[in-house]
Amino acid sequence: MKAKTSLTQPSRYPKRMDYSEETINAILDEGLFCHVSFTNDGQPFLLPTGYARIGKILYLHGSVGSHFFMQMAKGIPVCVAVTLLDALVLARSVFNHSVNYRSVIGFGKTRLVENEEEKWLAAKSFTEHMIPGRWDDARQPTASEMKKTMFIAVELEEMSAKLRTHGVGDDPEDLDLDVWAGLLPLPVKAQPLQVAEDLKAGVPVPEYLQNYWRGK
Amino acid sequence: MKAKTSLTQPSRYPKRMDYSEETINAILDEGLFCHVSFTNDGQPFLLPTGYARIGKILYLHGSVGSHFFMQMAKGIPVCVAVTLLDALVLARSVFNHSVNYRSVIGFGKTRLVENEEEKWLAAKSFTEHMIPGRWDDARQPTASEMKKTMFIAVELEEMSAKLRTHGVGDDPEDLDLDVWAGLLPLPVKAQPLQVAEDLKAGVPVPEYLQNYWRGK
Repeated sequence: MKAKTSLTQPSRYPKRMDYSEETINAILDEGLFCHVSFTNDGQPFLLPTGYARIGKILYLHGSVGSHFFMQMAKGIPVCVAVTLLDALVLARSVFNHSVNYRSVIGFGKTRLVENEEEKWLAAKSFTEHMIPGRWDDARQPTASEMKKTMFIAVELEEMSAKLRTHGVGDDPEDLDLDVWAGLLPLPVKAQPLQVAEDLKAGVPVPEYLQNYWRGK
Repeated sequence: MKAKTSLTQPSRYPKRMDYSEETINAILDEGLFCHVSFTNDGQPFLLPTGYARIGKILYLHGSVGSHFFMQMAKGIPVCVAVTLLDALVLARSVFNHSVNYRSVIGFGKTRLVENEEEKWLAAKSFTEHMIPGRWDDARQPTASEMKKTMFIAVELEEMSAKLRTHGVGDDPEDLDLDVWAGLLPLPVKAQPLQVAEDLKAGVPVPEYLQNYWRGK
Protein backbone atom coordinates (compact mmCIF):
# COMPACT_ATOMS: atom_id res chain seq x y z
CA MET A 1 0.00 0.00 0.00
CA LYS A 2 1.36 3.39 -0.98
CA ALA A 3 1.20 6.19 1.54
CA LYS A 4 1.49 9.96 1.17
CA THR A 5 0.93 10.27 -2.54
CA SER A 6 -0.76 13.21 -4.22
CA LEU A 7 -4.08 11.60 -3.26
CA THR A 8 -3.42 11.42 0.46
CA GLN A 9 -1.02 14.33 1.08
CA PRO A 10 -2.79 16.98 3.11
CA SER A 11 -2.64 20.71 2.42
CA ARG A 12 -3.56 21.56 6.02
CA TYR A 13 -2.74 20.24 9.49
CA PRO A 14 -0.10 17.66 8.44
CA LYS A 15 0.27 16.76 12.15
CA ARG A 16 -3.21 15.28 12.10
CA MET A 17 -2.26 12.75 9.43
CA ASP A 18 -1.32 9.19 10.24
CA TYR A 19 -0.33 6.62 7.66
CA SER A 20 0.34 3.71 10.03
CA GLU A 21 -1.49 0.49 9.38
CA GLU A 22 -2.26 0.14 13.09
CA THR A 23 -4.10 3.46 13.30
CA ILE A 24 -5.90 2.95 10.00
CA ASN A 25 -7.05 -0.58 10.86
CA ALA A 26 -8.23 0.44 14.34
CA ILE A 27 -10.50 3.10 12.83
CA LEU A 28 -11.79 0.79 10.10
CA ASP A 29 -12.51 -1.93 12.64
CA GLU A 30 -14.36 0.41 14.99
CA GLY A 31 -16.59 2.03 12.35
CA LEU A 32 -19.99 0.59 11.56
CA PHE A 33 -20.55 2.10 8.15
CA CYS A 34 -18.60 3.82 5.43
CA HIS A 35 -19.38 6.23 2.63
CA VAL A 36 -18.39 5.10 -0.85
CA SER A 37 -17.91 7.72 -3.53
CA PHE A 38 -17.80 7.02 -7.23
CA THR A 39 -18.30 8.87 -10.46
CA ASN A 40 -20.69 8.24 -13.30
CA ASP A 41 -20.41 10.49 -16.37
CA GLY A 42 -18.63 13.15 -14.28
CA GLN A 43 -21.37 13.16 -11.64
CA PRO A 44 -20.21 12.19 -8.13
CA PHE A 45 -22.38 9.72 -6.21
CA LEU A 46 -22.34 8.61 -2.57
CA LEU A 47 -23.45 5.40 -0.96
CA PRO A 48 -23.54 4.99 2.83
CA THR A 49 -23.19 1.29 3.56
CA GLY A 50 -21.83 -1.30 5.97
CA TYR A 51 -18.53 -3.06 5.42
CA ALA A 52 -16.02 -5.53 6.75
CA ARG A 53 -12.26 -5.37 6.49
CA ILE A 54 -9.95 -8.27 5.72
CA GLY A 55 -6.36 -7.10 5.34
CA LYS A 56 -6.43 -4.23 2.84
CA ILE A 57 -9.78 -5.20 1.34
CA LEU A 58 -13.09 -3.69 2.37
CA TYR A 59 -16.06 -5.91 1.58
CA LEU A 60 -19.41 -4.33 0.80
CA HIS A 61 -22.62 -6.14 0.09
CA GLY A 62 -25.94 -5.30 -1.43
CA SER A 63 -28.75 -6.73 -3.44
CA VAL A 64 -27.97 -8.07 -6.89
CA GLY A 65 -30.68 -5.64 -8.10
CA SER A 66 -29.06 -2.47 -6.73
CA HIS A 67 -27.85 -0.15 -9.47
CA PHE A 68 -25.03 1.17 -7.27
CA PHE A 69 -23.77 -2.36 -6.77
CA MET A 70 -24.15 -3.12 -10.46
CA GLN A 71 -21.95 -0.09 -11.17
CA MET A 72 -19.36 -1.30 -8.70
CA ALA A 73 -19.46 -4.81 -10.16
CA LYS A 74 -17.88 -3.37 -13.32
CA GLY A 75 -14.67 -2.50 -11.44
CA ILE A 76 -14.52 1.24 -10.91
CA PRO A 77 -12.31 3.64 -8.93
CA VAL A 78 -13.85 4.60 -5.60
CA CYS A 79 -13.01 6.68 -2.59
CA VAL A 80 -14.13 5.31 0.77
CA ALA A 81 -14.40 7.18 4.07
CA VAL A 82 -14.96 5.93 7.60
CA THR A 83 -15.48 8.78 10.06
CA LEU A 84 -15.77 8.50 13.83
CA LEU A 85 -16.86 11.56 15.75
CA ASP A 86 -15.53 11.59 19.31
CA ALA A 87 -16.26 15.01 20.81
CA LEU A 88 -17.12 18.61 20.15
CA VAL A 89 -14.28 20.90 21.22
CA LEU A 90 -15.57 24.11 22.77
CA ALA A 91 -13.02 26.91 22.85
CA ARG A 92 -13.56 30.37 24.33
CA SER A 93 -13.48 31.78 20.79
CA VAL A 94 -15.79 30.59 18.02
CA PHE A 95 -12.82 30.46 15.61
CA ASN A 96 -11.00 27.87 17.74
CA HIS A 97 -13.96 25.54 18.09
CA SER A 98 -13.21 22.16 16.64
CA VAL A 99 -14.19 18.53 16.60
CA ASN A 100 -12.30 15.50 17.84
CA TYR A 101 -12.59 12.77 15.25
CA ARG A 102 -10.78 9.86 13.68
CA SER A 103 -11.25 9.23 9.99
CA VAL A 104 -9.81 7.08 7.24
CA ILE A 105 -9.90 7.92 3.55
CA GLY A 106 -9.09 5.09 1.18
CA PHE A 107 -8.68 4.98 -2.58
CA GLY A 108 -9.06 1.81 -4.54
CA LYS A 109 -10.90 -0.12 -7.17
CA THR A 110 -13.94 -2.32 -6.84
CA ARG A 111 -14.08 -5.96 -7.82
CA LEU A 112 -17.10 -8.25 -8.00
CA VAL A 113 -16.56 -11.21 -5.70
CA GLU A 114 -17.28 -14.32 -7.76
CA ASN A 115 -15.41 -17.01 -5.87
CA GLU A 116 -17.78 -18.91 -3.57
CA GLU A 117 -15.28 -19.27 -0.76
CA GLU A 118 -14.48 -15.55 -0.77
CA LYS A 119 -18.22 -14.76 -0.75
CA TRP A 120 -18.75 -16.81 2.40
CA LEU A 121 -15.71 -15.29 4.02
CA ALA A 122 -17.06 -11.81 3.22
CA ALA A 123 -20.53 -12.69 4.57
CA LYS A 124 -19.12 -14.04 7.81
CA SER A 125 -16.71 -11.11 8.22
CA PHE A 126 -19.49 -8.63 7.59
CA THR A 127 -21.65 -10.12 10.34
CA GLU A 128 -18.75 -10.45 12.75
CA HIS A 129 -17.65 -6.87 12.05
CA MET A 130 -21.03 -5.53 13.08
CA ILE A 131 -21.68 -7.95 15.96
CA PRO A 132 -18.77 -10.16 17.02
CA GLY A 133 -20.14 -13.57 18.00
CA ARG A 134 -23.30 -13.35 15.89
CA TRP A 135 -22.35 -15.58 12.93
CA ASP A 136 -22.18 -18.79 14.92
CA ASP A 137 -25.37 -17.99 16.84
CA ALA A 138 -27.79 -16.85 14.11
CA ARG A 139 -29.23 -18.98 11.32
CA GLN A 140 -26.60 -18.85 8.59
CA PRO A 141 -27.45 -17.98 4.97
CA THR A 142 -28.77 -20.56 2.54
CA ALA A 143 -27.28 -20.94 -0.92
CA SER A 144 -30.34 -19.17 -2.34
CA GLU A 145 -29.95 -16.21 0.03
CA MET A 146 -26.31 -15.95 -0.96
CA LYS A 147 -27.33 -15.82 -4.63
CA LYS A 148 -29.46 -12.75 -3.92
CA THR A 149 -26.50 -10.96 -2.38
CA MET A 150 -23.74 -9.26 -4.31
CA PHE A 151 -20.37 -8.90 -2.63
CA ILE A 152 -17.97 -6.22 -3.76
CA ALA A 153 -14.32 -6.10 -2.73
CA VAL A 154 -12.70 -2.68 -2.58
CA GLU A 155 -8.99 -3.25 -2.96
CA LEU A 156 -7.51 -0.31 -1.11
CA GLU A 157 -4.36 0.95 -2.76
CA GLU A 158 -3.87 4.13 -0.76
CA MET A 159 -5.11 5.00 2.70
CA SER A 160 -4.59 7.69 5.24
CA ALA A 161 -6.00 8.43 8.65
CA LYS A 162 -6.71 11.88 10.02
CA LEU A 163 -7.22 12.44 13.71
CA ARG A 164 -7.79 15.24 16.15
CA THR A 165 -7.63 13.87 19.67
CA HIS A 166 -6.37 16.71 21.87
CA GLY A 167 -8.01 19.32 24.06
CA VAL A 168 -9.04 22.93 23.60
CA GLY A 169 -6.65 25.17 21.64
CA ASP A 170 -7.50 28.77 22.48
CA ASP A 171 -5.33 31.80 21.81
CA PRO A 172 -3.49 32.97 24.97
CA GLU A 173 -5.35 36.28 25.03
CA ASP A 174 -8.70 34.46 25.22
CA LEU A 175 -7.90 32.26 28.23
CA ASP A 176 -9.18 34.78 30.74
CA LEU A 177 -12.63 35.13 29.15
CA ASP A 178 -15.73 34.13 31.09
CA VAL A 179 -16.62 31.45 28.56
CA TRP A 180 -16.88 27.76 29.42
CA ALA A 181 -14.34 25.63 27.54
CA GLY A 182 -13.84 21.91 27.29
CA LEU A 183 -14.91 18.78 25.46
CA LEU A 184 -18.41 17.47 24.87
CA PRO A 185 -17.91 13.74 24.19
CA LEU A 186 -20.36 12.23 21.70
CA PRO A 187 -19.41 8.57 21.31
CA VAL A 188 -21.54 5.81 19.86
CA LYS A 189 -22.80 3.94 22.90
CA ALA A 190 -25.14 0.97 22.97
CA GLN A 191 -28.45 1.63 24.68
CA PRO A 192 -30.68 -1.04 26.26
CA LEU A 193 -31.68 -3.82 23.86
CA GLN A 194 -35.22 -3.80 22.45
CA VAL A 195 -36.38 -7.38 22.25
CA ALA A 196 -38.56 -8.48 19.30
CA GLU A 197 -42.16 -8.83 20.43
CA ASP A 198 -42.48 -12.28 18.88
CA LEU A 199 -39.25 -13.68 20.33
CA LYS A 200 -39.66 -17.31 21.33
CA ALA A 201 -40.10 -17.66 25.08
CA GLY A 202 -36.97 -18.56 27.00
CA VAL A 203 -34.39 -17.31 24.50
CA PRO A 204 -31.78 -15.49 26.58
CA VAL A 205 -29.79 -12.39 25.62
CA PRO A 206 -26.49 -13.77 24.32
CA GLU A 207 -23.33 -12.77 26.15
CA TYR A 208 -21.88 -10.96 23.11
CA LEU A 209 -24.78 -8.48 23.25
CA GLN A 210 -24.62 -7.79 26.96
CA ASN A 211 -21.61 -5.50 26.78
CA TYR A 212 -21.65 -4.44 23.15
CA TRP A 213 -18.93 -1.89 22.59
CA ARG A 214 -17.20 -0.35 19.58
CA GLY A 215 -13.51 0.44 19.81
CA LYS A 216 -10.94 -0.89 22.21
CA MET B 1 -36.06 21.44 -5.62
CA LYS B 2 -36.69 18.51 -7.93
CA ALA B 3 -37.48 15.16 -6.43
CA LYS B 4 -37.34 11.63 -7.81
CA THR B 5 -35.17 12.20 -10.83
CA SER B 6 -32.76 9.67 -12.25
CA LEU B 7 -30.29 10.79 -9.58
CA THR B 8 -32.54 10.08 -6.63
CA GLN B 9 -34.78 7.26 -7.87
CA PRO B 10 -33.96 4.06 -5.99
CA SER B 11 -33.55 0.67 -7.59
CA ARG B 12 -34.30 -1.12 -4.31
CA TYR B 13 -36.64 -0.67 -1.34
CA PRO B 14 -38.70 2.24 -2.76
CA LYS B 15 -40.70 2.19 0.50
CA ARG B 16 -37.66 3.42 2.37
CA MET B 17 -37.48 6.61 0.28
CA ASP B 18 -38.89 9.90 1.46
CA TYR B 19 -38.78 13.09 -0.57
CA SER B 20 -40.59 15.33 1.91
CA GLU B 21 -38.86 18.51 2.96
CA GLU B 22 -39.81 17.88 6.59
CA THR B 23 -38.08 14.50 6.75
CA ILE B 24 -35.04 15.70 4.82
CA ASN B 25 -34.60 18.83 6.96
CA ALA B 26 -35.01 16.92 10.23
CA ILE B 27 -32.15 14.57 9.25
CA LEU B 28 -29.92 17.42 8.04
CA ASP B 29 -30.57 19.37 11.23
CA GLU B 30 -29.81 16.40 13.49
CA GLY B 31 -26.56 15.38 11.77
CA LEU B 32 -23.24 16.77 12.96
CA PHE B 33 -21.16 16.11 9.91
CA CYS B 34 -21.59 15.24 6.26
CA HIS B 35 -19.52 13.57 3.59
CA VAL B 36 -18.95 15.60 0.44
CA SER B 37 -18.02 13.77 -2.74
CA PHE B 38 -16.52 15.39 -5.79
CA THR B 39 -14.54 14.38 -8.82
CA ASN B 40 -11.18 15.56 -10.05
CA ASP B 41 -9.93 14.17 -13.39
CA GLY B 42 -12.28 11.21 -13.04
CA GLN B 43 -11.01 10.35 -9.56
CA PRO B 44 -13.65 10.46 -6.80
CA PHE B 45 -12.71 12.24 -3.56
CA LEU B 46 -14.42 12.40 -0.19
CA LEU B 47 -14.33 15.03 2.50
CA PRO B 48 -15.95 14.47 5.92
CA THR B 49 -16.81 17.89 7.31
CA GLY B 50 -19.24 19.88 9.43
CA TYR B 51 -22.05 21.92 7.95
CA ALA B 52 -25.04 24.12 8.61
CA ARG B 53 -28.29 24.25 6.69
CA ILE B 54 -30.18 27.38 5.73
CA GLY B 55 -33.15 26.55 3.52
CA LYS B 56 -31.82 24.42 0.68
CA ILE B 57 -28.24 25.51 1.10
CA LEU B 58 -25.62 23.60 3.08
CA TYR B 59 -22.76 25.78 4.26
CA LEU B 60 -19.31 24.24 4.68
CA HIS B 61 -16.23 25.99 5.95
CA GLY B 62 -12.53 25.37 5.87
CA SER B 63 -9.20 27.10 5.75
CA VAL B 64 -8.46 29.31 2.75
CA GLY B 65 -5.36 27.11 2.28
CA SER B 66 -7.22 23.81 1.97
CA HIS B 67 -6.96 22.30 -1.50
CA PHE B 68 -10.38 20.65 -1.18
CA PHE B 69 -11.94 24.00 -0.43
CA MET B 70 -10.03 25.65 -3.26
CA GLN B 71 -11.51 23.01 -5.59
CA MET B 72 -14.99 23.71 -4.30
CA ALA B 73 -14.46 27.46 -4.62
CA LYS B 74 -14.40 26.95 -8.40
CA GLY B 75 -18.04 25.83 -8.43
CA ILE B 76 -18.18 22.08 -8.98
CA PRO B 77 -20.91 19.40 -8.85
CA VAL B 78 -20.93 17.54 -5.54
CA CYS B 79 -22.90 14.83 -3.83
CA VAL B 80 -23.45 15.24 -0.10
CA ALA B 81 -24.56 12.59 2.40
CA VAL B 82 -25.69 12.88 6.00
CA THR B 83 -26.13 9.48 7.64
CA LEU B 84 -27.56 8.79 11.08
CA LEU B 85 -27.25 5.28 12.45
CA ASP B 86 -30.00 4.43 14.93
CA ALA B 87 -29.80 0.73 15.68
CA LEU B 88 -28.53 -2.64 14.58
CA VAL B 89 -31.39 -4.95 13.67
CA LEU B 90 -30.73 -8.51 14.79
CA ALA B 91 -32.88 -11.07 13.03
CA ARG B 92 -32.85 -14.82 13.66
CA SER B 93 -31.27 -15.29 10.23
CA VAL B 94 -28.07 -13.59 9.17
CA PHE B 95 -29.66 -12.70 5.81
CA ASN B 96 -32.37 -10.62 7.49
CA HIS B 97 -30.02 -8.63 9.68
CA SER B 98 -30.27 -4.96 8.95
CA VAL B 99 -29.60 -1.50 10.26
CA ASN B 100 -32.01 1.23 11.25
CA TYR B 101 -30.77 4.50 9.83
CA ARG B 102 -31.88 7.80 8.42
CA SER B 103 -29.88 9.32 5.60
CA VAL B 104 -30.08 12.16 3.13
CA ILE B 105 -28.31 12.28 -0.22
CA GLY B 106 -28.17 15.66 -1.92
CA PHE B 107 -26.88 16.73 -5.31
CA GLY B 108 -25.87 20.26 -6.05
CA LYS B 109 -23.17 22.67 -7.01
CA THR B 110 -20.71 24.52 -4.83
CA ARG B 111 -20.38 28.29 -4.72
CA LEU B 112 -17.73 30.38 -2.94
CA VAL B 113 -19.41 32.69 -0.45
CA GLU B 114 -18.06 36.17 -1.13
CA ASN B 115 -20.72 38.41 0.35
CA GLU B 116 -19.70 39.52 3.87
CA GLU B 117 -23.22 39.31 5.26
CA GLU B 118 -23.70 35.77 3.97
CA LYS B 119 -20.32 34.78 5.43
CA TRP B 120 -21.35 35.97 8.89
CA LEU B 121 -24.70 34.25 8.56
CA ALA B 122 -22.93 31.02 7.61
CA ALA B 123 -20.48 31.33 10.53
CA LYS B 124 -23.25 31.90 13.02
CA SER B 125 -25.41 29.09 11.58
CA PHE B 126 -22.49 26.70 11.65
CA THR B 127 -21.85 27.32 15.35
CA GLU B 128 -25.53 27.21 16.23
CA HIS B 129 -26.00 23.99 14.24
CA MET B 130 -23.34 22.24 16.29
CA ILE B 131 -24.16 23.81 19.66
CA PRO B 132 -27.37 25.86 19.85
CA GLY B 133 -26.77 28.83 22.14
CA ARG B 134 -23.00 28.95 21.68
CA TRP B 135 -22.67 31.89 19.26
CA ASP B 136 -23.89 34.52 21.71
CA ASP B 137 -21.84 33.08 24.57
CA ALA B 138 -18.40 32.51 23.00
CA ARG B 139 -16.01 35.18 21.75
CA GLN B 140 -17.16 35.89 18.21
CA PRO B 141 -14.75 35.92 15.25
CA THR B 142 -12.65 38.93 14.39
CA ALA B 143 -12.49 40.28 10.84
CA SER B 144 -9.02 38.77 10.52
CA GLU B 145 -10.23 35.33 11.64
CA MET B 146 -13.05 35.52 9.12
CA LYS B 147 -10.51 36.26 6.37
CA LYS B 148 -8.71 33.00 7.15
CA THR B 149 -11.94 31.05 6.73
CA MET B 150 -13.48 30.04 3.42
CA PHE B 151 -17.21 29.46 3.29
CA ILE B 152 -18.70 27.30 0.58
CA ALA B 153 -22.41 27.14 -0.17
CA VAL B 154 -23.73 23.89 -1.61
CA GLU B 155 -26.91 24.78 -3.45
CA LEU B 156 -28.87 21.55 -3.24
CA GLU B 157 -30.90 20.93 -6.37
CA GLU B 158 -32.03 17.38 -5.65
CA MET B 159 -32.41 15.61 -2.34
CA SER B 160 -33.83 12.39 -1.05
CA ALA B 161 -34.03 10.74 2.33
CA LYS B 162 -33.80 7.04 2.95
CA LEU B 163 -34.94 5.52 6.22
CA ARG B 164 -35.31 2.17 7.88
CA THR B 165 -37.10 2.62 11.20
CA HIS B 166 -39.01 -0.60 11.82
CA GLY B 167 -38.34 -3.76 13.78
CA VAL B 168 -37.01 -7.20 12.92
CA GLY B 169 -38.15 -8.72 9.61
CA ASP B 170 -37.57 -12.45 9.82
CA ASP B 171 -39.02 -15.08 7.51
CA PRO B 172 -41.98 -16.89 9.13
CA GLU B 173 -40.16 -20.23 9.17
CA ASP B 174 -37.34 -18.72 11.28
CA LEU B 175 -39.51 -17.30 14.08
CA ASP B 176 -39.31 -20.43 16.16
CA LEU B 177 -35.51 -20.59 16.23
CA ASP B 178 -33.66 -20.29 19.54
CA VAL B 179 -31.91 -17.11 18.40
CA TRP B 180 -32.27 -13.78 20.18
CA ALA B 181 -33.86 -11.11 17.97
CA GLY B 182 -34.41 -7.41 18.46
CA LEU B 183 -32.82 -4.01 18.15
CA LEU B 184 -29.52 -2.80 19.51
CA PRO B 185 -29.88 1.01 19.63
CA LEU B 186 -26.68 2.95 18.96
CA PRO B 187 -27.58 6.63 19.11
CA VAL B 188 -25.21 9.55 19.50
CA LYS B 189 -25.53 10.53 23.15
CA ALA B 190 -23.64 13.22 24.98
CA GLN B 191 -21.38 11.97 27.76
CA PRO B 192 -20.25 14.02 30.78
CA LEU B 193 -18.44 17.24 29.85
CA GLN B 194 -14.66 17.36 30.19
CA VAL B 195 -13.74 20.82 31.42
CA ALA B 196 -10.55 22.47 30.10
CA GLU B 197 -7.82 22.32 32.77
CA ASP B 198 -7.07 26.01 32.43
CA LEU B 199 -10.68 27.21 32.62
CA LYS B 200 -10.97 30.46 34.55
CA ALA B 201 -12.26 29.81 38.08
CA GLY B 202 -15.96 30.41 38.57
CA VAL B 203 -17.10 29.97 34.96
CA PRO B 204 -20.25 27.83 35.16
CA VAL B 205 -21.41 25.19 32.67
CA PRO B 206 -23.87 27.06 30.44
CA GLU B 207 -27.45 25.84 30.38
CA TYR B 208 -27.31 24.92 26.67
CA LEU B 209 -24.62 22.33 27.46
CA GLN B 210 -26.36 20.74 30.42
CA ASN B 211 -28.81 18.75 28.35
CA TYR B 212 -27.14 18.63 24.97
CA TRP B 213 -29.18 16.47 22.65
CA ARG B 214 -29.31 15.84 18.91
CA GLY B 215 -32.66 15.26 17.28
CA LYS B 216 -36.09 16.11 18.54
